[in-house]
Amino acid sequence: MRDEHENRAIDLKNIRITDDFWKTEQELVRTEVIPYQWEALNDRVPGAAPSFAMHNFRAAKALRARSHEPGFTAPVFGKVPFEVLPEDPAHPDPGKFYGFLFQDTDFYKWIEAVAYSLTDHPDPELQKTADEAITIVAGAQAEDGYLDTYYILNGRNAEFSNLRDNHELYCFGHLTEAAVAYAQATGNSELLGVAERCASYISSKIGAEEGKKHGYPGHEIAEMALVRLYEETGEEKYLNLSRYFIDERGKDPKYFGLEGRPQPEHEKPNPVFSYYQAHKPVREQDEAMGHAVRAMYLYSGMADIARLTDDDALKEACRKLFSSVSRDKMYVTGGVGSTHIGEAFTFPYDLPNDTAYTESCAAIGLVFFSRRMLEMEPKSIYADVMERALYNGVLSGIALDGKSFFYVNPLEVWPEASHRDARKLHVKNVRQKWFGCACCPPNIARLLGSVGAYAYTENEDTLFTHLYMSSEIKKRVDDREVSVKLSADRSSPVKWDVKILVENAPSDFTLALRIPGWCGGKYELSGVPESAVCKKDGYLYVKKDWADADELQISFSCPVRFIRSDTRVRENSGKIAVTHGPLVYCLEEKDNGPDLNLVMIERGTEASEVVFENAEIAGRTAEILLVPGLREQPVTDQGLYFDAEEKTDTCTPVTLRMIPYFFWANRGENEMQVWIRRA
Amino acid sequence: MRDEHENRAIDLKNIRITDDFWKTEQELVRTEVIPYQWEALNDRVPGAAPSFAMHNFRAAKALRARSHEPGFTAPVFGKVPFEVLPEDPAHPDPGKFYGFLFQDTDFYKWIEAVAYSLTDHPDPELQKTADEAITIVAGAQAEDGYLDTYYILNGRNAEFSNLRDNHELYCFGHLTEAAVAYAQATGNSELLGVAERCASYISSKIGAEEGKKHGYPGHEIAEMALVRLYEETGEEKYLNLSRYFIDERGKDPKYFGLEGRPQPEHEKPNPVFSYYQAHKPVREQDEAMGHAVRAMYLYSGMADIARLTDDDALKEACRKLFSSVSRDKMYVTGGVGSTHIGEAFTFPYDLPNDTAYTESCAAIGLVFFSRRMLEMEPKSIYADVMERALYNGVLSGIALDGKSFFYVNPLEVWPEASHRDARKLHVKNVRQKWFGCACCPPNIARLLGSVGAYAYTENEDTLFTHLYMSSEIKKRVDDREVSVKLSADRSSPVKWDVKILVENAPSDFTLALRIPGWCGGKYELSGVPESAVCKKDGYLYVKKDWADADELQISFSCPVRFIRSDTRVRENSGKIAVTHGPLVYCLEEKDNGPDLNLVMIERGTEASEVVFENAEIAGRTAEILLVPGLREQPVTDQGLYFDAEEKTDTCTPVTLRMIPYFFWANRGENEMQVWIRRA
Repeated sequence: MRDEHENRAIDLKNIRITDDFWKTEQELVRTEVIPYQWEALNDRVPGAAPSFAMHNFRAAKALRARSHEPGFTAPVFGKVPFEVLPEDPAHPDPGKFYGFLFQDTDFYKWIEAVAYSLTDHPDPELQKTADEAITIVAGAQAEDGYLDTYYILNGRNAEFSNLRDNHELYCFGHLTEAAVAYAQATGNSELLGVAERCASYISSKIGAEEGKKHGYPGHEIAEMALVRLYEETGEEKYLNLSRYFIDERGKDPKYFGLEGRPQPEHEKPNPVFSYYQAHKPVREQDEAMGHAVRAMYLYSGMADIARLTDDDALKEACRKLFSSVSRDKMYVTGGVGSTHIGEAFTFPYDLPNDTAYTESCAAIGLVFFSRRMLEMEPKSIYADVMERALYNGVLSGIALDGKSFFYVNPLEVWPEASHRDARKLHVKNVRQKWFGCACCPPNIARLLGSVGAYAYTENEDTLFTHLYMSSEIKKRVDDREVSVKLSADRSSPVKWDVKILVENAPSDFTLALRIPGWCGGKYELSGVPESAVCKKDGYLYVKKDWADADELQISFSCPVRFIRSDTRVRENSGKIAVTHGPLVYCLEEKDNGPDLNLVMIERGTEASEVVFENAEIAGRTAEILLVPGLREQPVTDQGLYFDAEEKTDTCTPVTLRMIPYFFWANRGENEMQVWIRRA
Repeated sequence: MRDEHENRAIDLKNIRITDDFWKTEQELVRTEVIPYQWEALNDRVPGAAPSFAMHNFRAAKALRARSHEPGFTAPVFGKVPFEVLPEDPAHPDPGKFYGFLFQDTDFYKWIEAVAYSLTDHPDPELQKTADEAITIVAGAQAEDGYLDTYYILNGRNAEFSNLRDNHELYCFGHLTEAAVAYAQATGNSELLGVAERCASYISSKIGAEEGKKHGYPGHEIAEMALVRLYEETGEEKYLNLSRYFIDERGKDPKYFGLEGRPQPEHEKPNPVFSYYQAHKPVREQDEAMGHAVRAMYLYSGMADIARLTDDDALKEACRKLFSSVSRDKMYVTGGVGSTHIGEAFTFPYDLPNDTAYTESCAAIGLVFFSRRMLEMEPKSIYADVMERALYNGVLSGIALDGKSFFYVNPLEVWPEASHRDARKLHVKNVRQKWFGCACCPPNIARLLGSVGAYAYTENEDTLFTHLYMSSEIKKRVDDREVSVKLSADRSSPVKWDVKILVENAPSDFTLALRIPGWCGGKYELSGVPESAVCKKDGYLYVKKDWADADELQISFSCPVRFIRSDTRVRENSGKIAVTHGPLVYCLEEKDNGPDLNLVMIERGTEASEVVFENAEIAGRTAEILLVPGLREQPVTDQGLYFDAEEKTDTCTPVTLRMIPYFFWANRGENEMQVWIRRA
């Protein structure tokens, strides 16, 4: 059933973020990430693994240019020996494909981030660079619309032959996301044309009709990208292709078992179809499984389709999957994916802190999924999860100076283990400049650049405020342009004051204000008569006869909280985490000395005893929490095992200095810990 | 410097074990393990993976028989396609080798266990079976002395070409251990001849001289086996070959880097030489590294050579390595090898309980190493570790009915994780009948069969009692046969009473009695004047004018102990283990309900409050400990994360029922936990 409050993301052109906190992040993207990544895409970063992304597009463009020459023969898959890296990295063969199968997406994610940056901050020089790059990409597209440089350069005779593993539809999805964003931002629709032609070509090869492949993406994203393309162009065929992917997925006989190589014997014990969320039809799925990023992207597409087609079974599946993620399988940081083996979900309540995978991209995916659930049915449970992931699991992925990134975001780090324990080699202690598989940095960039579209969504007459950040929004209601100026004051450590100035609003206009979970239901709304407020699903709907300039205030209580886990989370038995507002806090060795396993917070210590202090960390101001704690006396001279006698079992009172989780690892390699033992 | 108390293992012919506890284990080996394994070696166990061990020997024997026929051509390595399993398991090609490279050792370990069993319990039928099998093995040996059915059947042109990986010297080591044991037990020296000829052939191919390979075993054991062969035969050349292996190991340039395939790029980050303990010369090694079983076997050989050649540098390396193992890298159960990745040691104090590898064979190896340290210099620190490993990490490897086995011995098990968490798939919750790589079951059998040689060692005039088990020992001193009858009474839960009757001892005779670490220095020795007792390194040396029949008693305090870990063991922060005498105790779900993570022992609870109870578990009587504990109230209805408020944070007093660790997993799949939270 269609939700009366169904809504969709606000157009970024209609929002200007003025918030210090988010402006700082966006400026990092604009001034650090985007320029750096352009160099990386062009293999010009000394010491970094080359991307070959632009190289591959240029090679494909040159191939197409040659294709009309007499005597031209197209590459044949299997005949051209495939190389990941050129023998001499300084001299790649200009005609060959290099890098991962999905290397094209390095560019697509970058250009999407560029689009958001240009929306907010016009930059003719950057736009010129981007326009020229798009022309190269357009030139690489085959005349029939196909675009994937891996197959174009290695032999299109094998295209769509291994949807399970070979990422063509994943590349298409990122192309499409970028194309829509870039057209919206700049009016240049060259890339949009590329995406549309590519979508049409895919539709001609994959679908329900006889003679087409009855497949779907091995790595999802096309589902939600096609929805975006549909919403931009109004072309139903894109919606239909997305729905086809959703509907076909997981049906018997399994497409992924039919195409490509048969499942090898040694993979048999693995639930391999669930890795791709293809173990059963999506409407029957009720447990988040498999590769976490893939899962988040699929569920996002499902929520899009469920909303647009008003598909109750699909909506219910989305709710169950959201619950499975957020109720059973999510870290307190909003990170998801407990294991590096398959970068995947494991089973409910299995949330190890020190071997967590919690890929930045999976937290980003959870933000995507949460917003789409909000679009389907605005309930604050979705926004709570979105905010948790954004402020913690996503932001920890990027350094405070914007120059390095985490792929993996653990909740506990013992540096020696990361160096010497083969089970933890995936857990890095310092962020890296760039990755061979560079999905996270540009993914963070495109999310931060478009954060306004997560803070606000809208429908015809309602503006939803999900995240509170200072900003100015324009919204057309009836024939009037309503202006909303929101000012979020986070200077007080105990409350979060938000002033909202609504101008030129007709009486149809509704302002929906989320009540964040972290305020514990304690807030004060003023400037509005009680009769103008209706509370539903964690949102305050304010509708009134608006004055020309109407100011209201809402103030949320923002206490420090000591948090426990569901007792089935074994890793956190007898431990607590500390949060403040949307932020999860952590201990770092830099502030608290080594051996964080010896640190405790005594039972009976109240969160209200915590003292606030501002401190500078790596050039950024952080609100530090000073928490009364205990430190167990180290015992290292009694042998490995010894009698638990009182004399060796004493504690010293200490003041724990806790920093926001996303501030960690900005001062060199050191221990870090989120969950703290209770004494 | 030679230790004045240097000693060596007692000849099993001179000991008869009468102890209920150990007799039961030995009877399991005799009545269950040995017959079952003979069936397994002959591929006659329905449903179990075939061993092919006897198949391979028969095939090699047939090949040798054919080798004199006209037109015979020997197999050429690389020409015969290598198969691990026959296409049709019911019809293996009688001429082909199947199974692991080291499949021959399945038989050698079995025949060694048979030897010990026959020593204690003559059985003409079993001996006939064994004699006939030995004749097959002898027939498989090449005329020049070479014996490894993998190369004999696949092509001897490649023999000794990959000492690093291909286990020829490992097979030889097990052959030799078995051969000495069988000759000692039965007087049949046919297998001893096989081992001697094989040793001579190896000496002709590997050694310091020009033209020989300057290599050493990739999987150690030959080092200690050659010492045993030397001690049995008096032939110095065997001692020299062992010393050569010890001396050459880890020298630059690394032999393992020279022979065989070069190290592939993807292995580069791994400290690959350390996996084989070949990263530096053994005398420079001071940290236990690499594959744990390999390490234990090497260190055992080092201790043998250090003792026999009075090599101070080697002795010091042995002490450092023993300390590294037992002080930094050993579980409270005596298990070693923290990770399944490479079945290996990790770094100091990294002792995860739920992902532990702690292979049964590694605990067995630690028993070997400890006894050899005792032989070198009898200090009770070595015996304490030996006893800890034997009663816990080794015994847990075999089911109480002797019919199934653990390869991996974790200290904490959550069955769902073993099924659904790819990081814990190696952790089984129920013992298995047999393994494709069947090293542990026969290794346990040969250790249990020869446990008397770990309980007692001797030198010219001294009998060392390391483990207290009821038994009768004969020992020649001067020209007299001294009889020692030891009776260990463990019926009291608070003390361990030992009566020792010494008969016919000359005044030269010394009885050295270990003071176990678990008695906390509390013991009473009676029946001996104070002047007759000298205490050194944890042993009481009793020397006196012995009466014809002289009885003395020693009674060890045997308290329940609550044990902590060195605080650098992060996994055990805030946790205690419970021990009683040499036994480590554990909680099982069967006795304590599910969610063992919620169980605690309150600070202030004294170990003296523990109550004893006898109970029957899977047909065996166990001493159960009833420990006053607490159980945290489960909270599963508050969402995944919630405020740590007092109302949800309550505990109920419970009585924890703890069973000896080695009793675990004998009542079906369930949770188990050794380390318990303190409240």
